[in-house]
Amino acid sequence: MIGNDRIHKILYGGDYNPEQWPEEIWQEDMRLFRLAHVDIVTLNVFSWASLQKDDDCWDFAQLDKIIGLAEENGLNICLATSTGAHPAWMARKYPEILRVNEQGIRRKFGSRHNSCPNSPIYRKFSAQLAGKLAARYKSCKNIVAWHVSNEYGGMCYCENCERAFRTWLKKKYGTLQELNRAWNTAFWSHTFYDWDEIVVPDLRSEEFYYGEGMLRTNFQGISLDYRRFMSDSMQECYRLEYDAIKRETPDIPITTNLMGTYSGLDYQRWAKDLDFISWDNYPAYDSQPWEPALRHDLMRGLKQGMPFALMEQTPSVSNWHPYCSLKRPGVMRLMSWQAAAHGADTIMFFQMRQSIGACEKLHGALIGHRGNEHTRVFAEMAALGAELEQIGGRTLGGRTPSKAAIVFDWDNWWATQLSAGPTILLDYLKETEAWYRYFWEKNIPVDLISTEDSLDDYQLIAAPMLYLCKSGFGEKLTRWTSDGGCFVGTYFSGYAQEHDLIVTGGYPGTLKDMLGIWVEETDAPVPDTPVSFTFRGKSYPAEILCDLIHPEGAVSLGSYKDEFYAGMPAVTRNSFGKGCSYYVATHSCPEFYREFLDCVCEEQHITPVADSPALVEVTLRSTGKAEIYFVLNHGNADSACRIPAAVRDLISGRSYAAGEEIPIASRNVKILQKNTK
Amino acid sequence: MIGNDRIHKILYGGDYNPEQWPEEIWQEDMRLFRLAHVDIVTLNVFSWASLQKDDDCWDFAQLDKIIGLAEENGLNICLATSTGAHPAWMARKYPEILRVNEQGIRRKFGSRHNSCPNSPIYRKFSAQLAGKLAARYKSCKNIVAWHVSNEYGGMCYCENCERAFRTWLKKKYGTLQELNRAWNTAFWSHTFYDWDEIVVPDLRSEEFYYGEGMLRTNFQGISLDYRRFMSDSMQECYRLEYDAIKRETPDIPITTNLMGTYSGLDYQRWAKDLDFISWDNYPAYDSQPWEPALRHDLMRGLKQGMPFALMEQTPSVSNWHPYCSLKRPGVMRLMSWQAAAHGADTIMFFQMRQSIGACEKLHGALIGHRGNEHTRVFAEMAALGAELEQIGGRTLGGRTPSKAAIVFDWDNWWATQLSAGPTILLDYLKETEAWYRYFWEKNIPVDLISTEDSLDDYQLIAAPMLYLCKSGFGEKLTRWTSDGGCFVGTYFSGYAQEHDLIVTGGYPGTLKDMLGIWVEETDAPVPDTPVSFTFRGKSYPAEILCDLIHPEGAVSLGSYKDEFYAGMPAVTRNSFGKGCSYYVATHSCPEFYREFLDCVCEEQHITPVADSPALVEVTLRSTGKAEIYFVLNHGNADSACRIPAAVRDLISGRSYAAGEEIPIASRNVKILQKNTK
Amino acid sequence: MIGNDRIHKILYGGDYNPEQWPEEIWQEDMRLFRLAHVDIVTLNVFSWASLQKDDDCWDFAQLDKIIGLAEENGLNICLATSTGAHPAWMARKYPEILRVNEQGIRRKFGSRHNSCPNSPIYRKFSAQLAGKLAARYKSCKNIVAWHVSNEYGGMCYCENCERAFRTWLKKKYGTLQELNRAWNTAFWSHTFYDWDEIVVPDLRSEEFYYGEGMLRTNFQGISLDYRRFMSDSMQECYRLEYDAIKRETPDIPITTNLMGTYSGLDYQRWAKDLDFISWDNYPAYDSQPWEPALRHDLMRGLKQGMPFALMEQTPSVSNWHPYCSLKRPGVMRLMSWQAAAHGADTIMFFQMRQSIGACEKLHGALIGHRGNEHTRVFAEMAALGAELEQIGGRTLGGRTPSKAAIVFDWDNWWATQLSAGPTILLDYLKETEAWYRYFWEKNIPVDLISTEDSLDDYQLIAAPMLYLCKSGFGEKLTRWTSDGGCFVGTYFSGYAQEHDLIVTGGYPGTLKDMLGIWVEETDAPVPDTPVSFTFRGKSYPAEILCDLIHPEGAVSLGSYKDEFYAGMPAVTRNSFGKGCSYYVATHSCPEFYREFLDCVCEEQHITPVADSPALVEVTLRSTGKAEIYFVLNHGNADSACRIPAAVRDLISGRSYAAGEEIPIASRNVKILQKNTK
Repeated sequence: MIGNDRIHKILYGGDYNPEQWPEEIWQEDMRLFRLAHVDIVTLNVFSWASLQKDDDCWDFAQLDKIIGLAEENGLNICLATSTGAHPAWMARKYPEILRVNEQGIRRKFGSRHNSCPNSPIYRKFSAQLAGKLAARYKSCKNIVAWHVSNEYGGMCYCENCERAFRTWLKKKYGTLQELNRAWNTAFWSHTFYDWDEIVVPDLRSEEFYYGEGMLRTNFQGISLDYRRFMSDSMQECYRLEYDAIKRETPDIPITTNLMGTYSGLDYQRWAKDLDFISWDNYPAYDSQPWEPALRHDLMRGLKQGMPFALMEQTPSVSNWHPYCSLKRPGVMRLMSWQAAAHGADTIMFFQMRQSIGACEKLHGALIGHRGNEHTRVFAEMAALGAELEQIGGRTLGGRTPSKAAIVFDWDNWWATQLSAGPTILLDYLKETEAWYRYFWEKNIPVDLISTEDSLDDYQLIAAPMLYLCKSGFGEKLTRWTSDGGCFVGTYFSGYAQEHDLIVTGGYPGTLKDMLGIWVEETDAPVPDTPVSFTFRGKSYPAEILCDLIHPEGAVSLGSYKDEFYAGMPAVTRNSFGKGCSYYVATHSCPEFYREFLDCVCEEQHITPVADSPALVEVTLRSTGKAEIYFVLNHGNADSACRIPAAVRDLISGRSYAAGEEIPIASRNVKILQKNTK
Repeated sequence: MIGNDRIHKILYGGDYNPEQWPEEIWQEDMRLFRLAHVDIVTLNVFSWASLQKDDDCWDFAQLDKIIGLAEENGLNICLATSTGAHPAWMARKYPEILRVNEQGIRRKFGSRHNSCPNSPIYRKFSAQLAGKLAARYKSCKNIVAWHVSNEYGGMCYCENCERAFRTWLKKKYGTLQELNRAWNTAFWSHTFYDWDEIVVPDLRSEEFYYGEGMLRTNFQGISLDYRRFMSDSMQECYRLEYDAIKRETPDIPITTNLMGTYSGLDYQRWAKDLDFISWDNYPAYDSQPWEPALRHDLMRGLKQGMPFALMEQTPSVSNWHPYCSLKRPGVMRLMSWQAAAHGADTIMFFQMRQSIGACEKLHGALIGHRGNEHTRVFAEMAALGAELEQIGGRTLGGRTPSKAAIVFDWDNWWATQLSAGPTILLDYLKETEAWYRYFWEKNIPVDLISTEDSLDDYQLIAAPMLYLCKSGFGEKLTRWTSDGGCFVGTYFSGYAQEHDLIVTGGYPGTLKDMLGIWVEETDAPVPDTPVSFTFRGKSYPAEILCDLIHPEGAVSLGSYKDEFYAGMPAVTRNSFGKGCSYYVATHSCPEFYREFLDCVCEEQHITPVADSPALVEVTLRSTGKAEIYFVLNHGNADSACRIPAAVRDLISGRSYAAGEEIPIASRNVKILQKNTK
Repeated sequence: MIGNDRIHKILYGGDYNPEQWPEEIWQEDMRLFRLAHVDIVTLNVFSWASLQKDDDCWDFAQLDKIIGLAEENGLNICLATSTGAHPAWMARKYPEILRVNEQGIRRKFGSRHNSCPNSPIYRKFSAQLAGKLAARYKSCKNIVAWHVSNEYGGMCYCENCERAFRTWLKKKYGTLQELNRAWNTAFWSHTFYDWDEIVVPDLRSEEFYYGEGMLRTNFQGISLDYRRFMSDSMQECYRLEYDAIKRETPDIPITTNLMGTYSGLDYQRWAKDLDFISWDNYPAYDSQPWEPALRHDLMRGLKQGMPFALMEQTPSVSNWHPYCSLKRPGVMRLMSWQAAAHGADTIMFFQMRQSIGACEKLHGALIGHRGNEHTRVFAEMAALGAELEQIGGRTLGGRTPSKAAIVFDWDNWWATQLSAGPTILLDYLKETEAWYRYFWEKNIPVDLISTEDSLDDYQLIAAPMLYLCKSGFGEKLTRWTSDGGCFVGTYFSGYAQEHDLIVTGGYPGTLKDMLGIWVEETDAPVPDTPVSFTFRGKSYPAEILCDLIHPEGAVSLGSYKDEFYAGMPAVTRNSFGKGCSYYVATHSCPEFYREFLDCVCEEQHITPVADSPALVEVTLRSTGKAEIYFVLNHGNADSACRIPAAVRDLISGRSYAAGEEIPIASRNVKILQKNTK
C-alpha cells in the first residue's frame, strides 16, 4: 500500500484529535500510545475553523505543536486536510458554500460534509488549504500519507450545481438533440430547446418518495446522470486538493477515506485519482461476517488487488447504530485481522481518545472517558499492537489469487435504485451479497471488479443483476466467454445501455446470444406468496422476480414448479464458443447458491484455499516472498481447520503438516505462513 | 357512448406514441395493429413540447404525419390535447405555471400533471393549443373523440391559487360574515375581517400529518372548501379546452380520462362537462374482483347509466405498483369483458408500443421491447380483438337495470378524510366497498349515485357513512322513504350539513326522524379489542365505531353483546310513511352484510340477475334490442351457473335453456344473449 | 390552591365559549349549569380576533356581556387572556409573528399556538391585551384566577429567534471562548469567532431525523441550549402578560394551563412564575391508571406540594386520539377524584358546550350536540357536581405526606432525547414511569422533585437515568446520602454536566464515589435478544442498556447471567456515610422493581398509606384539619381494602373501624376522613 522506508509492519493507530484537549493531556496520550504499540496517527481531520479564521487569516501554531509532538514520539502521520467541514465564518460570509437539499432548502451552518461541491468559493478555499498544509509540512519525514477531506458523500441541488450540471451535460452530450435522444424526452413532453431549461432532478422536479424512504424518479436518464455528475463533482473537489498537495510533496501518497458500499460515489472512477485505497469499516450490530469481507474485497478491487488501508473502525462501540452493542472480547482483533486477510496493510481506528462533547462522545476509543489504560478495550488493543509487532512485515503487499470475480458497478446500482418497477424488492447490493456469500463460505478467493477491469485472469465471472451494460461491456463479456470463460448471469440483466434506454429485440439485450435465452416476461411475486423451482432434484424458493425464459440455444437445468409458468426454465446453461454461460432467472436462498455454484465451480476447476467448518474463514495472501493463510473463527464455538500445505503459526511459532487438524478457538485468529521447501 | 356512424362494435386499441420512434417503425406498427384487430388509437397525449416551441412557434408537421398514418390505415382516432404536461421552455419563461406544494415549495420543471390550475398563462396556452388542434384537424373524419389533457389531479398552493380561492369564496359566500359563520371562525380566534386575510389551508396553516401520510386539518370548513375549489379549478381548465374545441368541432364528443375512485376531484360535478365518461382501470396486484366492478359502476353512474369508455388498462403489467405481477393468462380478457359487463363500450389500453426510456418503459404494451407479435401478451390481445369483431355491436349502448343504489358523494369522502376524530379507522371508500361487495357477490345490479341524482327508479338505497348531508339531501331521502323507498344508513351519518357544521338536536341530524333513532354517543373500539353484536341469532364483530342508539320509533333487530352498551341496539328498522329504513350502527364483516342485506332485499323484492357460485360474476345489460348476460369466472377453478332465461352464447353460438347449467372455465367469460320469443 | 373567600369547595366547571353561540342559547346554558352544579367557568380562551380588530381597534362588548352573564349567575370566573392564537389580520399585517418551522419554512395564518415567542410585535400586543383585560375587569369579584394564553408549546426557528438566541447565549456564556468550550466546538471544526455565526440548530443545520420521528443532533450543546432558550422565550411571553395583569389585580392568582409530561417546556423553571399550577389531563385510550397519577404528582411537585388545579379534562371523549373511546360509566368521576387524590383542588373540563364547527366539534362536552340534559354524560357530571357540594371544602389544601421522591428533570429529558447513542430505546419518561409505578401500586406517597428542591424531608430518593447532573446536583445528592439518605440510581447516570460535556475519570461521574462503582462499558442489547440477571434468587430480563460495573466499594446484590459479562454485578448496594445507595445497571420488568423496591422500602421504613388489591389505589391528603383517604378502584371487578385507621365515608356517612374491610365497587371511589380521637 503505502510505499515508504519507515514502514516495515502493519501500521497501527488511528484518528487523534489533541486539539480537543489541553496540552497537559498530550504527554499522557504519548505514554498510552507506547503501551498500545500505536505507530501511526491521523491528524487534523476537522480543524479548518482553527486553521483559518478569515479569508486571509491563518494560524498553524497548534498544528505545528501537534505534528511536533508526533514527530518527537516517532509516530507516523497520516495528515488530513481538514476540508470535510467548513468553518462557520465562511458559511456566514459565503452562503453559497452551503448545500441545498432535495426540497430546495438551503442549509445553514452545521454538521459536517456540508459544502456544496460546485461552489467556486469552497473549491478555492479547500484547495488552498490543502496546498498550504503541504507546503508547510513537506519536510516532515513522519508524514507517510495524505488524507484528503473525510468520507465524501451527500448531494446538493443548488443553483451552482444546476449550472455546473448543464456544463457537465454539454460536455457529455455535445448537442441537445443527442441529450433529448439519450433521455427519451419525447416521453411526457420533456423536449429541451435550451440548456438552461434543464433543472436539477430533485423532489421539486422528477423525483419523489415511494414507500419508506425509497427515492424514485420519473426520468431515469436525468436522475442517473445527476448521480454521475454529483460523484464527479466531489471527485473534482478531491482532485483539486490532490493536485495542490502533489505539487509540494510528489512522493507522499494521497488518499481519502471511502465507505465501502456507499452508493453515492462511483468509487471505481474515484480510484484512478487515489494513490492507494483507504476505507472505514463500521459493520452494523447485526452484520454477518461475509458483509465486511465483501466490502474489503470491493475496496481491494478498486485498484486491481493493491493492498489497502483500513483507515477507521471502532475499538468497541459506535454511537450511531440503533443499538450500540459492544464488540465482544476478541472481536476487535478478529475484525482487524479480517481486514488484513482481505488485503489491508494498516489497521486503524476512529479514535485514539474519546471526545467529551458533541455527537461522537459515546463512540469507542483507545483511551476512553476513564482516561487510563485499565480497560478491556485498551488491553485488547495493546495486545493486538504487540502481536502486530511480532508479525512484522510478513503480510505486507500480499495479493489475493482469485480465479473468480463478481462484477460490481455503480451505474447498475443507481439504475436499479431508480428503476420504476418491476418490484420494490429490487436490491443490487443484496443480490450481490447473495452471490458473494457462497465464495466467502467456501474460502474461494473472489475479486469484485468493475466493467473496465481486465477479465483475462478469471475463469468464472458472475454479474448479478447486470441491468445496464455500459460501453460495450456486454460485448466484452461475450468475447471473454467465447474465449473460454464461464459467465453467470441473473434475472434483470442486459435490459439497458448506458443511458438506461432499453436494448430492443428482447431481454437480456446484448447478453442474449451469449446466454442463449430470451426473457419474454418477468413476474414479480408478492412476499409470502411462494413460487418455487427445482434444481438437481431439490426445490428452492423463487423470489423478487421470476423471468419467463425461452431457451434460444441454452438448455434448462431446472424449472418452475408453480404458477402458469410452471415447467419454464429457471436455470439455464449455454455452451458458447470455447466457454459457457449460466443464467439464474430468479432470486433464491443460500442453499440454492451453494448447490448451484458448487456445480459451476467444480466444472470450472475453481477450488477453495482450504476447507473449513461453517463460520471459520480462511484466506490466502501471496506477497511474492511468502504465502500467508489467515484463519478466522467467527463462530461462538471452538473449531478447527486443515490447510492443504505445511504451515507455521506466526504467532505461536508452532508448525503444522499439510492437512493436519489446526484447532482454532472461538473468535480466534491464526496467521499461518506456508513453509517453503 | 360515442355516437358516430363509424362505430359498430366495441372499440379496441389504446395510447399510441409514434413520436417516440423513428418513422421506419410506424409501418410495422400498422401491420401489428391489423394482426391484433386494433381499430382505435389515442394520439398526442404528451406532445406539447414538440408542438409548441415558444409563445408563437408551432410545429404540427409530425402530428400531421401521425394522423395521416392513422387515417391511411383506417384507424379511429381519440385525439388528445397534450396539455397534461407543459413544456420545459414554458416553465422557464413563466415559472407561475409551476405548482407549489403543501409546504409552500414551488416545483421546478419535471414530471407531468405539473401545471398550476389557476395560472392565467397555463389556462391561456392550454386552451389555445386545444383550439388550434381542433381547428387544424376538424376535417379529419377518423377522429371519433377528443381526450382533453390526461388524468387531472393533484393540488397547488401558490399565490395565484390563493387569490383565486378568495374570489371563489366571495362568489360562494357573498360576505365575510357568512363565511365566518360557515367556517365557525369564532373557534380559535379565526375571525376574518378582510378577504385577503384568508390563506391556503396547507401544512403551513391549518393542515398537518397525523400518523402515516394521513392529512388532517384544524379547520374543516376551509379545508373542505379548498378541495372543492381545487376540483373546480381543474374543471375550469378542462372547460376552457372543451369550449375551444367545441367551437370548431361541435359534433365530436369530448372527454378526459378519469381515475375511478380518485378522491381529489368531484367527478360527479365534472361529469356535467364531459360528453361521455372515460376512465383508466389499474387494479392493484391484490385487488379483489369487486373492486374494479365498483369503480366501473361508479363511472357508469356519473352520467346516470350512460355507457362509458375504458380508456386505459395495462395489457399485462404496470410499472408503478410495489410488485408488478403479470396478469395471468386470460385475465386481460376477463378484465376487459368485466368493463363491458358493467357498461363499457370501448376496451382500450395503455399502451400500444412500449417506450424504451423514462419511467413507463417497464409498463406493459401490445408491442413489447421484443418488437414483434410472438409474445403471450400479443397473442391474447389479438384473440380478444378477433372476439370483439365477432361480437360486433350487440352489446353497444346497453344499460344496467338497477333497483338498488348506493350513494357515493365526494363531499362526504373529503369531510370524513378531514374529520378530527372519532377514529383513524374511518374510511369512506372502504365502508362503501363493504356494502357494494354484497350486491356484487349476489349479482344484484346496483348503481352508485350522487346526491343530485333522481331516486325515483330505486326501491333500495344505501348511503354508507353519510356524515354530511348537503343541499337538502337528508330531506330528499326522507321524502323518498316516506313515499315507499327502503333506506339503509350506517354509523357516522347525518352529523353535518354542507359546511361541516353539526346539525344540533342529536345525531343523525336530518335523517333522525326517518331513521327513528337518536345516537347519543359513539364509541371507537381499539383494533384487536373485540366488541360484538347479534343479528338473527348470530354474533358479528362490531368494528371502527359503535353508536349508542336510543330508538325513537325504530325497533331493534340486533344488540351489542359487550361493553357497557351491551343490550343497546346495533341494527334497527323503522317504518316510515309508505316505506321503511334500516340503520347499522357499526362496521362488521362480510358475513353480516350478507345476512342483513339478504333480509332487506327479500323484503324489498330485489332479485339477482342470476344465481352463481362464489367468484362467478353475472351481469346484465339491456340495449333495447337485446338483453345480454355477461358471465365472468374470476376464480381459479372451473365452475358453472344457470341463467333464468333461454340464452345463446355469442362466441360459441351454443344455446342454453332457461335454468340449464352453463359451464364456465376458470378465468373464462361468456357473453349470452337472451332469446327473444 | 386559589386563595379566595368565595371558594369553600372543589371548584367545578370548565371552558365555556358562548361567543360561538347566539345569545338566546346562553340562558339555557345557565339553567344546565345549575343542574350540573357548575360553579366556575373559564372564559375568553380564544377570542383575540373578536376583541382586537386592528392595531388600535378594540371591542369588549361581547365579553362584557359574557362576564355579566357569569356574574349574574353567581359563577366564578377563570379569565383567560386569549393570546394562545393571534388574529388573522395581525398575521397578514405583521408576518413576523408567524413561526418558522424546523425546515425554515414560515407558517401562514392558521391553527393556534402559532405565534413566534420572540416576535416583538407578538410580545407587545399580547401583553397589551392582558393588561387591557385586567384593567377592564379588575372590579369583577367573580374572577378567581387568570389563565394566561393556553397550553404553551412548540418551537420556532425564525430570524427573530436566531437573534434572540444569540443574546440569550451572550448572557449565559459571556464570551465566545466559554461558549466554544461548553459546546466543545473543537469537534468538527465548529469554532465560532463572532456571535452572528451562530445559527438556530434545526434540520438545516445540526439536527436530523433518525428513524421514525426521532429528532437527533450533531451538536448536543447547541441543541440542548436551544430547548432551554425556547422554554425561556415562551416563559418570557408568559411573564410579560403576568406582569401586565399583576399591575392591575395584584391579589388575583395567575396561572397557565400546563400539559403534564410535555417535554417542550421546563415546567420546573416556569413554576416560579405561576401563582398556582394548573394542568390539562388527557390520558390516551390505553393509558394505565398510574400514568395520570404520575403526572398529577409531577404537577403537584412543581410548587413543592401545593394543591393544583385540574384545568381541563374531557367529560367523555377527545377528538384527537387515534381511537376516541368513550370514558366508561364512572370513569369520568373516578379520574376526577384521582386528580383530587393527588392534590387537585379544582375539577374542570374542556368543554361546557360542544362546538358545531372546526376540529374540536367531536370533543366531548357537558352539553353535547343534542343540547339538553338527557345524556349519560350530563347525568354523570351532574351527579359528581352534587357529590362535590356534599363533600364541601373538606379536602381543600390537603398535602401529600411523602418520604420518598423521584427526581424528574427537564434537562435530563432533553439530553437523553438528544443523545447520539447508545441505543434508540433510551426513554427518560418511560424509565421514570417504570420506577413510579411501584410506588403507585404500593400506595406509597411519592413526590416528583426537581434538582433544586430540598431533599431534607425524604428518606428515599430515586433518580432514574440521571444522565446529566447540573449545578452541583451530584454533590448535593452525595451530601444528602452521606447524611443518612438512601439513594437509588440507574444505568446511564452521572455521565455529563450541565453542557452535556462528559465528566472524565469514569462513569457515573460525580455520583461515582457515592454509588461506589465504576461503569467501564455499557452494552446495548438488541430487542428480542434476551439478556438476564438474577436478584434474590430470581431471574429478570436486562433490557435497553447493560452497564458493565466494577464495584469500588459497593457490594453486588445480583449479577448478569448471560453474555461475556455474566457474573458482573447488575444491582449493587453501597454504604456511604450515614446512608446508603443502590444502583440498578439495566432496565427490567415490573416484577423486578417490585422485588427490589420492596427490599429497599423495608430497609428504609417507607410504608404504604394502606394495603390494597391490585388496581385499587389509596392516597392520603392531610389538610391540617383532617386526614383524608381517597380509595379508587380502577379495576373492572368489585374489590375491597382496609385502612389502618378508623374512618368515616364522607359520601355515605358510614364509619369503618381501623382495619375493617371496606368494599369498593368497580370504578367506584370512596372519600374517607380519618376519625380524630
